Amino acid sequence: MKKKKFVLAPDSFKESMTAKEVCEAMEEGFRRSRPNDEFIHVPMADGGEGTVQSLVDATGGTLYNVQVRGPLQQEVVGQYGLLGDGITGAIEMASASGIQLIKPSEKNPLVTSTYGTGQLIKECLDKGIKRLIIGIGGSATNDGGSGMAAALGVKFLDKNGNDLPLGGGYLNTLETIDMSNVDPRLSEIEILVASDVTNPLCGPLGASAVFGPQKGADKEMVALLDENLSHYAAVIKEQIGKDIKDVPGAGAAGGLGAGLLTFTHAKLEKGVDIVIEYTGLIDKVKKADYVITGEGGMDYQTQYGKTAFGVAKVAQEFNKPVIGIAGYVGEGIEELYSKGFTAIFGILPGAMDLDEALKMGKENVARTCDNIGRILP
Amino acid sequence: MKKKKFVLAPDSFKESMTAKEVCEAMEEGFRRSRPNDEFIHVPMADGGEGTVQSLVDATGGTLYNVQVRGPLQQEVVGQYGLLGDGITGAIEMASASGIQLIKPSEKNPLVTSTYGTGQLIKECLDKGIKRLIIGIGGSATNDGGSGMAAALGVKFLDKNGNDLPLGGGYLNTLETIDMSNVDPRLSEIEILVASDVTNPLCGPLGASAVFGPQKGADKEMVALLDENLSHYAAVIKEQIGKDIKDVPGAGAAGGLGAGLLTFTHAKLEKGVDIVIEYTGLIDKVKKADYVITGEGGMDYQTQYGKTAFGVAKVAQEFNKPVIGIAGYVGEGIEELYSKGFTAIFGILPGAMDLDEALKMGKENVARTCDNIGRILP
Repeated sequence: MKKKKFVLAPDSFKESMTAKEVCEAMEEGFRRSRPNDEFIHVPMADGGEGTVQSLVDATGGTLYNVQVRGPLQQEVVGQYGLLGDGITGAIEMASASGIQLIKPSEKNPLVTSTYGTGQLIKECLDKGIKRLIIGIGGSATNDGGSGMAAALGVKFLDKNGNDLPLGGGYLNTLETIDMSNVDPRLSEIEILVASDVTNPLCGPLGASAVFGPQKGADKEMVALLDENLSHYAAVIKEQIGKDIKDVPGAGAAGGLGAGLLTFTHAKLEKGVDIVIEYTGLIDKVKKADYVITGEGGMDYQTQYGKTAFGVAKVAQEFNKPVIGIAGYVGEGIEELYSKGFTAIFGILPGAMDLDEALKMGKENVARTCDNIGRILP
Repeated sequence: MKKKKFVLAPDSFKESMTAKEVCEAMEEGFRRSRPNDEFIHVPMADGGEGTVQSLVDATGGTLYNVQVRGPLQQEVVGQYGLLGDGITGAIEMASASGIQLIKPSEKNPLVTSTYGTGQLIKECLDKGIKRLIIGIGGSATNDGGSGMAAALGVKFLDKNGNDLPLGGGYLNTLETIDMSNVDPRLSEIEILVASDVTNPLCGPLGASAVFGPQKGADKEMVALLDENLSHYAAVIKEQIGKDIKDVPGAGAAGGLGAGLLTFTHAKLEKGVDIVIEYTGLIDKVKKADYVITGEGGMDYQTQYGKTAFGVAKVAQEFNKPVIGIAGYVGEGIEELYSKGFTAIFGILPGAMDLDEALKMGKENVARTCDNIGRILP
């Protein structure tokens, strides 16, 4: 039999395996039944948690830990990645400014700040990158990205010329944005914002109204935060000349989308599309006989921007069979068959609780791939 | 694409679906992805629970309910099947004399009897059968098949010429076996005993020692029962001229094996082999492109006489790919790949408890077969 080429392009299986580990388990399984075939690992992500890890893994890059300020100015260890090309950096805002970094009782979007995210960007600039991918899901903040900008030298001043305290709660006193000390390298790099969120900055579909409550804002706080972001957008428009208030995605990550659009050369793109581009997935799929993807759970929602679906679209474009595997196969997966997926298999060997399933993920992936390999031509 | 022929030959999924229902769920699933292929149902069994149902379903036969005596002489509704050929009958001894028919507190192999099994045989004779398949797993009895024989006219008498009470506890008083009133039709039919048990009637590997305890016998009772069966065998040898004591399988079902060997033209065979023969599986597999089997659970033990393995051996003989599916895929299934199985898939869609898994069996079988159908050439 002619040697076949498999592209293994799974997302991470949340709480069980990174995408790279899934690739490894897939290959281990396939090799049991097809020891002579070729397996190309393309660990994937959707712009959310695990995106930097996947981009680094897929390109043979390096992951760096660095101490930055957390959402409440506490010290945290953030991460950034330098991709294999040596000129592309990658960060996840959640690594410095994520909601998982604070206790539920500490949630307070009046004071939480994206300052640490700005510090991560600065670290990347110090590495000499020319391009930066930023995943912006999971934020604890509602500061319009002002903290991020402050870390890069933008000054937000009140009517007395004093620096505003950090946090979305103080933007109503913003009088002047002073760009004179901004990091000059910021204008030289291209920023790709991985975001599936299309909300505007303000209003009933804006950052405060839609995402404020999960960050700890009550109804009054939402109103205040929304007003503040509105004022912030007005000052930006007047003093910087950018009208970002209604740009789709400006409201992502508590308005970090707006901040990036204002203070950097940023472009918002779907997370999975960025990952597809920077992992070189398309070229690899072109040469493949089979594409294998997967994620922790797959159901009808998979078609709305999930990683596995992005992979399937690429495979479909080049007429390659694509098989999905998942720890949980939910309602409506049959909708996916007409949209690129050749087949989708659950990996569980029997009745068990979730904890056990998460623990035995690797063997379950391997066994399932072994068996898929046994019936593929 | 050329139309493909699938033979669907699963065992029942215990506590979830009969083998016939599994066949139906398999076809429903495959038709989703391969609406034009052909699907031949061969519901299987291994001689244990569900064997009569499968034989009836596979041959287009009929199932009959009939009132007989249970293990403790209570009224129970037993079943027998008339196969599609109109001349082969099938019964499961457990349907009349099974341990599931009595409460745990009622277990007492001194008095439990196979009389009801004899009644079922009589019903089959009344239907004019020429051949009878008897599945003998799951008995509550240790009477050497004396109850079964009694129901068919054999008289077991003590030294005073009185009938022995039913049950293995009274065989020590057996003096005479009177065959003068035995049903004459019994000598005209061929009996196939489906049994994977090879234990002799007596001794440390005999019916009483090995299976007595699970039927309620303590150590002393085991010794008594064993002695009684030994005496029973001696009387049989002396008066009927058959030496059945050490025949492999004589100890099956509390010695029902011995009783059948003594009083009928019986042949012991592996349950799955009998089912394979009477369902016509071999001829169907010969013409198939794919064979699909399965059972509730599959693991390394599947190779020791389980239904799915019997099906796989047939498929292997004719070089047909055979795919197994199971609710539970256990340890060591990789041992099965070199022994006929092309691949084995679990059917569960995610973490869940056993109750839930048992309830959603049909959809899980269907979805899995749909997806297998999607990647088979």
